[in-house]
Amino acid sequence: MRIAVDIFGGDNAPFAPLKACVCARKAGIAEVIAVGDEAKIKEVAEKEQLPLDGIQIVHAPAVIPVEANPTDITKKYADSSMAVALKLVAQGEADAVISAGSTGAFVVGATLIVKRIRGVRRAAFAPVIPGCDGKYMLVDVGANVDCRPEMLLQFALLGSIYMEKVLGVKNPRVGLINIGTEDTKGQELQVETYKLLKEASLNFIGNVEPRYLSEGACDVAVADGFTGNVVLKTLEGTVHSLFSELKKVFYATPVSKIAALTLKKGLKKLKNKMDYSEYGGSALLGISKPVIKVHGDSQAKTFVKAMEQAIKMEKMNVIGLMAEAVSAAKDKE
Amino acid sequence: MRIAVDIFGGDNAPFAPLKACVCARKAGIAEVIAVGDEAKIKEVAEKEQLPLDGIQIVHAPAVIPVEANPTDITKKYADSSMAVALKLVAQGEADAVISAGSTGAFVVGATLIVKRIRGVRRAAFAPVIPGCDGKYMLVDVGANVDCRPEMLLQFALLGSIYMEKVLGVKNPRVGLINIGTEDTKGQELQVETYKLLKEASLNFIGNVEPRYLSEGACDVAVADGFTGNVVLKTLEGTVHSLFSELKKVFYATPVSKIAALTLKKGLKKLKNKMDYSEYGGSALLGISKPVIKVHGDSQAKTFVKAMEQAIKMEKMNVIGLMAEAVSAAKDKE
Repeated sequence: MRIAVDIFGGDNAPFAPLKACVCARKAGIAEVIAVGDEAKIKEVAEKEQLPLDGIQIVHAPAVIPVEANPTDITKKYADSSMAVALKLVAQGEADAVISAGSTGAFVVGATLIVKRIRGVRRAAFAPVIPGCDGKYMLVDVGANVDCRPEMLLQFALLGSIYMEKVLGVKNPRVGLINIGTEDTKGQELQVETYKLLKEASLNFIGNVEPRYLSEGACDVAVADGFTGNVVLKTLEGTVHSLFSELKKVFYATPVSKIAALTLKKGLKKLKNKMDYSEYGGSALLGISKPVIKVHGDSQAKTFVKAMEQAIKMEKMNVIGLMAEAVSAAKDKE
Repeated sequence: MRIAVDIFGGDNAPFAPLKACVCARKAGIAEVIAVGDEAKIKEVAEKEQLPLDGIQIVHAPAVIPVEANPTDITKKYADSSMAVALKLVAQGEADAVISAGSTGAFVVGATLIVKRIRGVRRAAFAPVIPGCDGKYMLVDVGANVDCRPEMLLQFALLGSIYMEKVLGVKNPRVGLINIGTEDTKGQELQVETYKLLKEASLNFIGNVEPRYLSEGACDVAVADGFTGNVVLKTLEGTVHSLFSELKKVFYATPVSKIAALTLKKGLKKLKNKMDYSEYGGSALLGISKPVIKVHGDSQAKTFVKAMEQAIKMEKMNVIGLMAEAVSAAKDKE
């Protein structure tokens, strides 16, 4: 499998994505294509002693800034590393693409350049979040601020296939994020989506309050991109602030410091458990090829995990199955 | 000040609210009126050795169940402890009311029985949440699932007055909960509300991502009830699950148990810090009298805190100031 990696996206670019390419190549995970300014890639590789043997470099002179208008990816920034990486996939020269760059530009670029699966209304970001009890997918987390019920139904279908095939969750339980469990709860979007999900060929378990997500209430938590993003960012903020508060408790006195040292291993493990980069990146569900966005501050390790994720998607024919499911749902309408 | 307490609301009723009445009376905090089935109140008081001296009992034979249709509070459950407590306030026989019962019924009851401040479109629930860096008010957290921009503007006005007068925050910074900081971010509701808040007599600091709430990004975080509820419940769930995960780390080995013991005091303090019942209950902003909802699982301590909160609201003329602010904003329109 050939994976195009945007070398100039994210806070740790170009080092982190380039190192990931080198690691993946060395481990024989995949054929990697490093996309970006060739001279700069070679310069960094030499400086950081990263051997580029076996890595194909595809030159792209520009970089799309995070603050750029997302639609500029096909215009002003058509020669950016992100756009060129997406084009490689669109033209069949790569099978998957990974980037840590601008989220908005990546959604627009994937939709316009790589294109959606036939029948899919909108692509959705779907990170897999670790909870106390297993993990769950949150879909969408921001690709679509305004959603209609039919879009949420598709997110549920796509998310179920992903969880079953990529993460081995049998008959994934789909929940609709809502502020109460009764079918009359929520805004019009939730009330209408509830009806659609109930009728669909899905293991729909009803509304799920975000309070119970991390306790394993469902495997696929469906929401519009606004609500999903609010859940994700509240979660991130709370985990972050609790760990920083814990640090204060640990560093309070010499005795507490020693006690904390004893617990270090367990706490480190807990922190890793809460870190959702453990499951790679956010797959952009609904696009006709594996397109994976990793967090802006990702290190090489996360890029490698995302590559494994793309490989699993290909191996399990996830996109083929998604196309079938969407088409079958359409026939049912 | 005379405070009516719904003795039959919440998971720990009637003991917790009744104990709170006894404590408050003993400490001379307020004149308390215990509302509920008189025979049962006397029975519990005797069994639990709670002296009822100085506590007025107002009989109400029924209890409104959590699953009841909220609008039934003025019909089928007009003789419930919650409805009767609200009526006492409406008739001027009490100055404030506290309940841990059904949230929906309390909103409807307060709106229909006690009534809103003149000019207020909707009442909103506004808990004060502890963060790492200070505290912030979240308004609304569920009284209004569907909101218009003008409602959010009023929430901001009411919330600012509360934070300034009750919690002593000077010139409170108002933030609009959104998925990005730019003024074009969010759904139509956020985009339109942004414009209104910018023009208002408020210390509006712009959009705030929920990621930064606990770091003290703002003092009053404004949202529609659906979004606010999602933030609150995600936050609650994350804190709960992190603490239960921590427990596992602490109880993992004999050595970790000893280490955890050393940290116990600091951790307990942290847990209390994260517990938003520390600030009492959620004031139902926009109602013409102090109406305070405490969490369903509240203990006596939280009821007492809520009484102190109601007293502070009265002492600082919070409702008078809110009426002025709403009227001034209306004149500006």
